[in-house]
Amino acid sequence: MKTIKVGVLGATGMVGQRFVQLLENHPWFKLTELCASERSAGKSYEEALGDRWKIGGTVPSCANDAVVKKPEPGIDCDLVFSALDSSVAGPIEESFAKSGYVVCSNSRNHRFDPDVPLLVPEVNHGHMEAVKAQNYGDGFIAANPNCSTTGMVIPLKALNDAFGVSNVFVTTMQALSGAGFNGFGLDIEDNVLPLISGEEEKMESEPLKILGKFNGRSFVNADMKFSAQCNRVNVIDGHMEALNVKLSEKTGTEDFVSALGNFNPLKGLNLPSAPDPPIIIAEDEDRPQPKYDRNSGNGMAVTVGRIRECPILDYKFLVLSHNTVRGAAGGSILNAEFIAKKGYF
Amino acid sequence: MKTIKVGVLGATGMVGQRFVQLLENHPWFKLTELCASERSAGKSYEEALGDRWKIGGTVPSCANDAVVKKPEPGIDCDLVFSALDSSVAGPIEESFAKSGYVVCSNSRNHRFDPDVPLLVPEVNHGHMEAVKAQNYGDGFIAANPNCSTTGMVIPLKALNDAFGVSNVFVTTMQALSGAGFNGFGLDIEDNVLPLISGEEEKMESEPLKILGKFNGRSFVNADMKFSAQCNRVNVIDGHMEALNVKLSEKTGTEDFVSALGNFNPLKGLNLPSAPDPPIIIAEDEDRPQPKYDRNSGNGMAVTVGRIRECPILDYKFLVLSHNTVRGAAGGSILNAEFIAKKGYF
Amino acid sequence: MKTIKVGVLGATGMVGQRFVQLLENHPWFKLTELCASERSAGKSYEEALGDRWKIGGTVPSCANDAVVKKPEPGIDCDLVFSALDSSVAGPIEESFAKSGYVVCSNSRNHRFDPDVPLLVPEVNHGHMEAVKAQNYGDGFIAANPNCSTTGMVIPLKALNDAFGVSNVFVTTMQALSGAGFNGFGLDIEDNVLPLISGEEEKMESEPLKILGKFNGRSFVNADMKFSAQCNRVNVIDGHMEALNVKLSEKTGTEDFVSALGNFNPLKGLNLPSAPDPPIIIAEDEDRPQPKYDRNSGNGMAVTVGRIRECPILDYKFLVLSHNTVRGAAGGSILNAEFIAKKGYF
Amino acid sequence: MKTIKVGVLGATGMVGQRFVQLLENHPWFKLTELCASERSAGKSYEEALGDRWKIGGTVPSCANDAVVKKPEPGIDCDLVFSALDSSVAGPIEESFAKSGYVVCSNSRNHRFDPDVPLLVPEVNHGHMEAVKAQNYGDGFIAANPNCSTTGMVIPLKALNDAFGVSNVFVTTMQALSGAGFNGFGLDIEDNVLPLISGEEEKMESEPLKILGKFNGRSFVNADMKFSAQCNRVNVIDGHMEALNVKLSEKTGTEDFVSALGNFNPLKGLNLPSAPDPPIIIAEDEDRPQPKYDRNSGNGMAVTVGRIRECPILDYKFLVLSHNTVRGAAGGSILNAEFIAKKGYF
Repeated sequence: MKTIKVGVLGATGMVGQRFVQLLENHPWFKLTELCASERSAGKSYEEALGDRWKIGGTVPSCANDAVVKKPEPGIDCDLVFSALDSSVAGPIEESFAKSGYVVCSNSRNHRFDPDVPLLVPEVNHGHMEAVKAQNYGDGFIAANPNCSTTGMVIPLKALNDAFGVSNVFVTTMQALSGAGFNGFGLDIEDNVLPLISGEEEKMESEPLKILGKFNGRSFVNADMKFSAQCNRVNVIDGHMEALNVKLSEKTGTEDFVSALGNFNPLKGLNLPSAPDPPIIIAEDEDRPQPKYDRNSGNGMAVTVGRIRECPILDYKFLVLSHNTVRGAAGGSILNAEFIAKKGYF
Repeated sequence: MKTIKVGVLGATGMVGQRFVQLLENHPWFKLTELCASERSAGKSYEEALGDRWKIGGTVPSCANDAVVKKPEPGIDCDLVFSALDSSVAGPIEESFAKSGYVVCSNSRNHRFDPDVPLLVPEVNHGHMEAVKAQNYGDGFIAANPNCSTTGMVIPLKALNDAFGVSNVFVTTMQALSGAGFNGFGLDIEDNVLPLISGEEEKMESEPLKILGKFNGRSFVNADMKFSAQCNRVNVIDGHMEALNVKLSEKTGTEDFVSALGNFNPLKGLNLPSAPDPPIIIAEDEDRPQPKYDRNSGNGMAVTVGRIRECPILDYKFLVLSHNTVRGAAGGSILNAEFIAKKGYF
Repeated sequence: MKTIKVGVLGATGMVGQRFVQLLENHPWFKLTELCASERSAGKSYEEALGDRWKIGGTVPSCANDAVVKKPEPGIDCDLVFSALDSSVAGPIEESFAKSGYVVCSNSRNHRFDPDVPLLVPEVNHGHMEAVKAQNYGDGFIAANPNCSTTGMVIPLKALNDAFGVSNVFVTTMQALSGAGFNGFGLDIEDNVLPLISGEEEKMESEPLKILGKFNGRSFVNADMKFSAQCNRVNVIDGHMEALNVKLSEKTGTEDFVSALGNFNPLKGLNLPSAPDPPIIIAEDEDRPQPKYDRNSGNGMAVTVGRIRECPILDYKFLVLSHNTVRGAAGGSILNAEFIAKKGYF
Repeated sequence: MKTIKVGVLGATGMVGQRFVQLLENHPWFKLTELCASERSAGKSYEEALGDRWKIGGTVPSCANDAVVKKPEPGIDCDLVFSALDSSVAGPIEESFAKSGYVVCSNSRNHRFDPDVPLLVPEVNHGHMEAVKAQNYGDGFIAANPNCSTTGMVIPLKALNDAFGVSNVFVTTMQALSGAGFNGFGLDIEDNVLPLISGEEEKMESEPLKILGKFNGRSFVNADMKFSAQCNRVNVIDGHMEALNVKLSEKTGTEDFVSALGNFNPLKGLNLPSAPDPPIIIAEDEDRPQPKYDRNSGNGMAVTVGRIRECPILDYKFLVLSHNTVRGAAGGSILNAEFIAKKGYF
């Protein structure tokens, strides 16, 4: 694999920082460009951050002295990761694609474009076919889903392949880190916040596209129904999701667990960020827990636990995933690895 | 209403303290006896507590100098509130009932006895008829349900009366205070604990009895199904519960909200602890929140919010209630008030 | 005492809300005017707040429907409490004073004016003499000190009167609420923030004026030295301060404790908000604690504990006070009560 | 360096776990024995832990299958690390020393023995001479100090060498992890706990021995005075300490900072766990912070920040160190490395 030059758009934000962190020492990608808003452009990355490096550890040496640029085509790289705010991401990402860049986007703007794959490589890598339909010339856009969707669709894909899944109830207990630097102030202390604006809509619509099919011309939604209730709890990283699922085909608990534990569609591809296996079955009955399990598989694996029969539907269980790694920057980097491996450059 | 002398069994624990706090200045009940384990017996209440008064404010003056006794019949009162640990509560409560005391119990030991009402006055006061079947002579036992059940059955009763409820999915985000003084140590910081031992079983069985009927000889379970997932979050007081419900009869949101907001079966009884109304509809779309809403109706009301259609069943919404007030000591005191009002003394 | 009409400037902020809360049902003061920025002017108070009532409980009914005005003289009241941001407070407070209003200010702008008393009634009510030197006509300005200063000077006054105090080392562990709505985001979770901008300077300078004398023309600083280290910890309300003090005159622990416990210079004045006594000596050796002691004396008393000999100086001990009650709005209201009692209207 | 076999006594507790974690893949030490109480003896380490692996990550593979033994001489190793509870550590450690083992102890029992060095290699490695006076035959005991002492004595040694230090005021804001699994329950939420039993006494006495001299026969205390106030705050790992120091010789801030930053007495010894440099000077004025700085130098470095002149003494500043790494298990391992390097085996 020859080294691919990559850039990060929106590099000073919380997800942008995570991109920079995860790209340090990446075996395939070399981080050559950091872009951010006008306010930061022209400053060194360290200066642009001010004291806002908020994800632990120190600013990677590869980034520290880089000069931050405006997010405009012409920068020296082949692929850009977009952590831009959705208020500006749409046209900027398009301009990069039109200029021949591969765009791996964490923003929501293009997720439902009819030719943009909403990519989770373990789940729907076949959707990459859709990029051929994009009219951007050599470049294209691949999006990753919302953090709370990503964690859920991986085990649902395993179950859907094995037994069919028709209905999913999900109640989330989501971490604070996805909401950016400012968080919630005093409101989150000794509290639960029961509204995350737009989140339930995403969790009820994105999985239909991801778990659906690309028929050569357009995406066909999966034949499933989702009902989501999203809550914010006082946890720094790691989204917990309590699911109840209705299966098309009855099964026993042992087979149910095996279907999850044996799921490993990327095995053999040797993608650097791919967790192996992608789904970890928690052994103890009081797990997963965000504090102890969010970093499983370097934050890229999903931990499933408390699998038990549901008195109404078929099964209920918990899913935990790291929201800013698997659910954002790490997921986007895995997408880029898959794209690189498949020879799109 | 002539004054009724009452005692608290298990008065030094977390729920016991709440009983003592709520009984200070009660208009009908005079707290005359405090009982606790052998270790505490003979000491003043203050001394027995050590520095373990953990519910805010100060030890009520009515209790401070009382001498703690062993929990044995013979103490000077007509009614005892039991906050005893379930490892010892069963036979002690029976011995009090046999000696002619009214026992209002927060413990789980007798909740499923075929002649013990699992009483929530707004929901099933007719169940009090069952105590006539008890063989304790003049005394009897009335139990209140588990904290997480109590919050849920009040709105479910309102909905069941209006539209019929057949299926209930509930995922809880429960506060720490119900777990006693020691809590969870470091484990709860930056974490969610997805196992509360025995809690899901209680939430799936207790509502069937509470929402069912007493047919003159025995209890007949309600014809409903419950599926519960119980989690502990980093909140001091106040259980949040996310529900999805299937109704027997379709309805619009406005009628759904009215059925909840207009529910007030105790109106006119003038019970001192009865919240009026028992169900508060949160106006803002980001409520209820434990920190701001748990003390509604002096901690005795249930707050319902985020009522919206469910893409799979009929409605989804959140319920918040104060777990150690409405869900424990306060609920038991309301039971006693109902019993007193109905002339059982 | 005839009723005095009062207004609050900066009524929508965190301290402004506390003023409104504490003024509800005040026996002497009637809240007639609420003022805030241009953005809020013309709206009802409830509307101007949005969902930002952040201090627990509900918006007092006296304020709910009031129309918010701009903070300009002409409003219908005799006294204004200022919770304005220091970026604008200076000239606005002056304009009110010039128009004949009594201004009780929580802002820092005029604290070091040579004719403005930095008033803590238990400590330096004689400083009110200074207002005669103000050139505002009938109106005048009286300031209260910074929250972290207020808690400390009350016990220091008691000790200085009894034994003389020459040196004070103080390290604070301050609550979050004083920093406003937005707080610190994720930064305060699992963390201590060791810099509170400008706070150490205030704690090293304000006590010198407060504990000093007004000589008829100007203030003469107390002959003491202070060294402060200020930290923010993950507590909602209540500033903890660890002090080491050097006394001019040696004393035993018993006398030291008595000097604090017997201090009560406002006794007999019957000011509604004056705590009686102002200093509470914590009995248990592990107190004070913010969670359990901050509301002592309705949040107006200071709790002192862990009094013990210092191996280097004379004594070390802890002081706790409620930063937004005693240290801000409540302190300012007590100042107004003192002013009213002394006949300044 | 030939490999040295080591064991951990008290391997299931919080500090014991940290020993096991830090010894995985140690270049010089091979963990061959795990000992714990009777209750655990005979079980595999994993089984003995139950679900009590509480320090993040997973149980090291080197330990997982080991059979836990009773803490008695005869086990297969040359050196034991003791994380035993102080209620039992004293005689057990002696029995190991008498049987020829080197004992590196984190317990307080032998810290003040007249021939036991209270070892912090950067500070007092010359004290190792004292072990010759021990009557244990080939074995000996070397202790490390209390966690809150360790963090403080490293910068104080640097300052004492350069300028002399005569008086130290220290107020701590200590993390929860040192108090074991159970922590503080609800008490620590929204709170500060101002009493850590015995801690102030340790901080006022241990530095005198550590910074003192061994004169060939006994230890002579340093000629300094300490006054400590110890508090527990809601932080998981990392003790913050606010110090005011009086120097024997006046100096400027630049030289003061240099004396700290240039301190590196172990340089050249190539001890695997020795931080290089041991003291990190925080560049930003709002640092150190536990969350972001506790893992500096793999948790073995001490971070000093906010160095500024003290209005009463000479300087004030903050010190942060990781309490269960540098302050406990890691400190003890560094001691063992120093002992190994110096040829004591």
